[in-house]
Amino acid sequence: MKDLRVGVIGASGYSGSVAARLVATHPRMSVAFATSDKLAGESVALHLGVRADDSLRFVPNAAAIERASESDAVLLATAAEVSMQLLPALAARGLQVIDLSGAFRLAQGDYPRWYGFEHTAPMWLPRAHYGLPELFGSPPVGAPVANPGCYPTAALLAIGPLLRSGLVEAAGIVVDAKSGVTGAGRQSGDSYSFVEVDEDLRAYKVLSHQHTPEITRGLSRLGEGVKVTFTPHLTAVKRGLLATCYARPRTGASAGRIVECLRDTYARSAFVRALPPDQVMLKRVVGTNACHVGATADDDVVVAIGAIDNLLKGAAGQAIQNLNLMNGWDEASGLDGLQRVSP
Amino acid sequence: MKDLRVGVIGASGYSGSVAARLVATHPRMSVAFATSDKLAGESVALHLGVRADDSLRFVPNAAAIERASESDAVLLATAAEVSMQLLPALAARGLQVIDLSGAFRLAQGDYPRWYGFEHTAPMWLPRAHYGLPELFGSPPVGAPVANPGCYPTAALLAIGPLLRSGLVEAAGIVVDAKSGVTGAGRQSGDSYSFVEVDEDLRAYKVLSHQHTPEITRGLSRLGEGVKVTFTPHLTAVKRGLLATCYARPRTGASAGRIVECLRDTYARSAFVRALPPDQVMLKRVVGTNACHVGATADDDVVVAIGAIDNLLKGAAGQAIQNLNLMNGWDEASGLDGLQRVSP
Amino acid sequence: MKDLRVGVIGASGYSGSVAARLVATHPRMSVAFATSDKLAGESVALHLGVRADDSLRFVPNAAAIERASESDAVLLATAAEVSMQLLPALAARGLQVIDLSGAFRLAQGDYPRWYGFEHTAPMWLPRAHYGLPELFGSPPVGAPVANPGCYPTAALLAIGPLLRSGLVEAAGIVVDAKSGVTGAGRQSGDSYSFVEVDEDLRAYKVLSHQHTPEITRGLSRLGEGVKVTFTPHLTAVKRGLLATCYARPRTGASAGRIVECLRDTYARSAFVRALPPDQVMLKRVVGTNACHVGATADDDVVVAIGAIDNLLKGAAGQAIQNLNLMNGWDEASGLDGLQRVSP
Amino acid sequence: MKDLRVGVIGASGYSGSVAARLVATHPRMSVAFATSDKLAGESVALHLGVRADDSLRFVPNAAAIERASESDAVLLATAAEVSMQLLPALAARGLQVIDLSGAFRLAQGDYPRWYGFEHTAPMWLPRAHYGLPELFGSPPVGAPVANPGCYPTAALLAIGPLLRSGLVEAAGIVVDAKSGVTGAGRQSGDSYSFVEVDEDLRAYKVLSHQHTPEITRGLSRLGEGVKVTFTPHLTAVKRGLLATCYARPRTGASAGRIVECLRDTYARSAFVRALPPDQVMLKRVVGTNACHVGATADDDVVVAIGAIDNLLKGAAGQAIQNLNLMNGWDEASGLDGLQRVSP
Repeated sequence: MKDLRVGVIGASGYSGSVAARLVATHPRMSVAFATSDKLAGESVALHLGVRADDSLRFVPNAAAIERASESDAVLLATAAEVSMQLLPALAARGLQVIDLSGAFRLAQGDYPRWYGFEHTAPMWLPRAHYGLPELFGSPPVGAPVANPGCYPTAALLAIGPLLRSGLVEAAGIVVDAKSGVTGAGRQSGDSYSFVEVDEDLRAYKVLSHQHTPEITRGLSRLGEGVKVTFTPHLTAVKRGLLATCYARPRTGASAGRIVECLRDTYARSAFVRALPPDQVMLKRVVGTNACHVGATADDDVVVAIGAIDNLLKGAAGQAIQNLNLMNGWDEASGLDGLQRVSP
Repeated sequence: MKDLRVGVIGASGYSGSVAARLVATHPRMSVAFATSDKLAGESVALHLGVRADDSLRFVPNAAAIERASESDAVLLATAAEVSMQLLPALAARGLQVIDLSGAFRLAQGDYPRWYGFEHTAPMWLPRAHYGLPELFGSPPVGAPVANPGCYPTAALLAIGPLLRSGLVEAAGIVVDAKSGVTGAGRQSGDSYSFVEVDEDLRAYKVLSHQHTPEITRGLSRLGEGVKVTFTPHLTAVKRGLLATCYARPRTGASAGRIVECLRDTYARSAFVRALPPDQVMLKRVVGTNACHVGATADDDVVVAIGAIDNLLKGAAGQAIQNLNLMNGWDEASGLDGLQRVSP
Repeated sequence: MKDLRVGVIGASGYSGSVAARLVATHPRMSVAFATSDKLAGESVALHLGVRADDSLRFVPNAAAIERASESDAVLLATAAEVSMQLLPALAARGLQVIDLSGAFRLAQGDYPRWYGFEHTAPMWLPRAHYGLPELFGSPPVGAPVANPGCYPTAALLAIGPLLRSGLVEAAGIVVDAKSGVTGAGRQSGDSYSFVEVDEDLRAYKVLSHQHTPEITRGLSRLGEGVKVTFTPHLTAVKRGLLATCYARPRTGASAGRIVECLRDTYARSAFVRALPPDQVMLKRVVGTNACHVGATADDDVVVAIGAIDNLLKGAAGQAIQNLNLMNGWDEASGLDGLQRVSP
Repeated sequence: MKDLRVGVIGASGYSGSVAARLVATHPRMSVAFATSDKLAGESVALHLGVRADDSLRFVPNAAAIERASESDAVLLATAAEVSMQLLPALAARGLQVIDLSGAFRLAQGDYPRWYGFEHTAPMWLPRAHYGLPELFGSPPVGAPVANPGCYPTAALLAIGPLLRSGLVEAAGIVVDAKSGVTGAGRQSGDSYSFVEVDEDLRAYKVLSHQHTPEITRGLSRLGEGVKVTFTPHLTAVKRGLLATCYARPRTGASAGRIVECLRDTYARSAFVRALPPDQVMLKRVVGTNACHVGATADDDVVVAIGAIDNLLKGAAGQAIQNLNLMNGWDEASGLDGLQRVSP
């Protein structure tokens, strides 16, 4: 009998299926239930390719609330509108809830512009903890967790400590980020077909991506007067995300102090590691919950780079990390056996 | 204190570094030492990206024998000529030895033609156990293990049961196999550069690959009169291996019986799973120790397909599986937390 | 004023758009019209990225017959059922017609099983010329052309000359082929998404692909008693196709004679070149109308390999080659400026 | 007999071999000679895969000067130190010279820091024409051409017109660029092997790439007070380069005026085309000499993106374009038949 029974809602998407596998192989967690309309009735063990009780079958999404009574914690790998409904209902029952969507990451007023809907559970926005442990600590007891987006995770871990330490100006920050295709979620349209994407590279949602206010909000907890320009790019890899951040140095911010700041910030981190900026690369983090960061500077600019696996540290891995912390366990439990893909 | 102290010799190559990571994250094993001339003096934990005692440093290959006294088991991820020297020396000291090279997989007479050297430790050839557990069982007590090659693993698991059950002719078997680029080991020549390999596909060593006699030998334990044609191809993926095997059906070998044979053979296997042949694909096994197999037939031909991750079930993962079995543990210990790369 | 006004029907698919570009840049051809329901009304020049009269717009497929009166030749890049209707109508008007589908490549009786429909224009089957010029010559005056499929083109050019010369047995031929993803045409389903296909490799339509009878029929013109097993594989590249063919050698068929046969067959060919088999690779042909072939043998087997760009020599390039021949021009006209993708 | 006999020096590198193929298939040029120490003695036609006089063989690099007497123009696809020696010698003989290296693109004082050598032919620096025709016109009669670098070509074409029109500030420009692997030239080291590069993405030479002063110099001809931060990234594609440029808008620079500026600048360009920024992508330009640009803006920032094939518009294609212009021909001659790779 494992310590924590975890339900995964939306377990057939990319983040959801990775989350469900991490739960299934975690030494102290077990899959209480997994929902998916597409896979309803199919064996969870067979579909995920993990060893698990073969009697466990996917249930329809509509059964989520009912099945939640058999679980101690729930991971929401659902669209923001759906999470907005589910999180309050589940958290009110005393369950530990981690929401992988953007439904509880912003201020109420940001939702119409960036997510296209009015927020219907605004009282939960201040209660939800923004779960980036390395910068904002462990979730408080009883608080549901807004698990950070993939782009904000990489950008904040790279540039955040420099802003907090007063080494860079808060205005005029540029985040130029490149994500693998799983970042877009499971898509079946023409534009994500292999032939369209392979050997391609492009920017998308230029000046209009919904992670812009999330990055701004995260940085604003670390410095005043933040202005961020964010450009996401789609790159032809399956997994991985690299964020190249530019900021103006404040007086006295030498390359040496920049490097030192990142090194000191993450000296005892289980997952984040400071390296020279040209050693920060996708292949060293993909498959793991690691984030690699690196920075340098000259008189005019600071360049800080962060790399993560968008499905792990950028989504499901960070969710498990938060769940570990909420239960008082080693934050790397169930994550330290992950192997990077590149040998 | 872990149960088994394991030395990894040749830990900077692809198979060796994957093997070392698997040992480092195994619940009952620890890295006793890791050798690499290239990385001598560097931190094993840092280089492999795993949590481990930071005092553990790579040692030169020449220190392998001396350091072996601090270990219970040794994995040889070395060239065949090197393994030929090391295995007898280490096995004679009572250590558990798994050799990932081809040095102890063939008959003495095969070595000059296929490996280009005379075998200098022929008395160890009959003592070494060919470590393909699903077909040839657990290693006997005290026997060193010749860990199978990547191509033979996929081919034997796919076609082997059909031959053993008398469903296919032993003569005229064709194995057309496609391997990812890590199968070639760490190479720095022009011909393995990204620009040369990306978007390419080609056959190599046509009618002359050294895995030909290994496949023949493995199949010859399952049927008489085996004749195999083997063509390896290089395909532009990092990891993974697919073997498409052709054989003539024997009288009465319907598609139904073919399917049933594979299904029954692997019904209780921890790693091998029988599927319809067009569901056997790299993406479902890469990152794991799984092997997927599938077959069908018409009046003229049986087609059997096997897929593995060449670095895991085709090398380091199978080595750990053999080591688990030698120690009487669950064969999946330390391997069942591996996550497939494709979400 | 160009010599030949060419209509392209189905110009938004992969083969059709490549064909339209080749026509637009051909020194002696011009695009008379191009049909596409999806792009109707859009500028052909803009969409194809070629310099052309900007007044030329895509027209709906339904306008094809009407617009055909303004053209001298028509390329059908349409589904087989559509080509089956269009080819007779267009050929009857005296137009030069090249059909890129499989509608006129087989015997009448093959269609229900392999294509799933009854052929409604069977009298045109014997009139259509199977347009593989290197083996079956130039199209006769007035005959419509059934442009060969991609897999048959590579397989027939590799193994065909050996069968014709009596060097291999006609029974027991195996064709194990690997195609890039454009071979499947423009697909928007989940199963062709980048995330599903990237770094993957698999067989599909095992023992049931519709190119099986086409290969059999082509080979049967070169030898008696042909039996072919054909397995197509999907490989994660955009373009390119490699066919690895296995046959039993007939008495006296040494490796030397095999090599010589291919070399002599193609000594004066504009597009086909005989090489050692491990130098036959996608990257040397992709982007061009070339086919590279190579073979070797031992006592038990002949291995012959062919490589093409599936959209050029396997489809649109060969269509232009046939059109050149029908008009008495150099068969490489408009094709010899094509540059391979790999530098 | 073609009009222009062109020698290609350094014809076995990526840019050099692409350049040689373009010359060989150009309607008005022929390959006078091609040098390569590695391929000396081999058939140019066979190696390049083009139709050409089979008697033409590669000659050693040392024969370049001697053979130049048989040519009208010479393309230097050589290292900067080599070009620095060759260009003066060849230009002094009255030959048309296009140098693809960086040897004549900067001011004398820039060479020690950015290229690591003292310039030994400084009097040729002001005589060399920086060959970016869309911004700086046709080469003057008699002037050798410094063919622009790949990163500067994309960056200058995207942001240059906006700076020239006074729409953006000259200080604080950021160029975040991503290049395919051929951009690094033919490399055989470990770090460019397929396994190291595939599915990876990283920045390199952060704040120290030698194209930084070239971009600065080009922009400084279009506006005063230019300060540029440039970060190149290596992305896992064979060909293609995307430059995402950031600048501060000057008063009155609306998104509308930004778009209009690019559209007007390139309205009659043969190769550059203005598009919405999220339609600027590698796959639409790779294989062709096209450059696609697009831009947008809000109150705080202007984002301008440019995409090219690094080997064509970023190297060999632009060299041919310059050569066409020097000879008074259509600048697209020999380039308008190029087909993009993505169908």
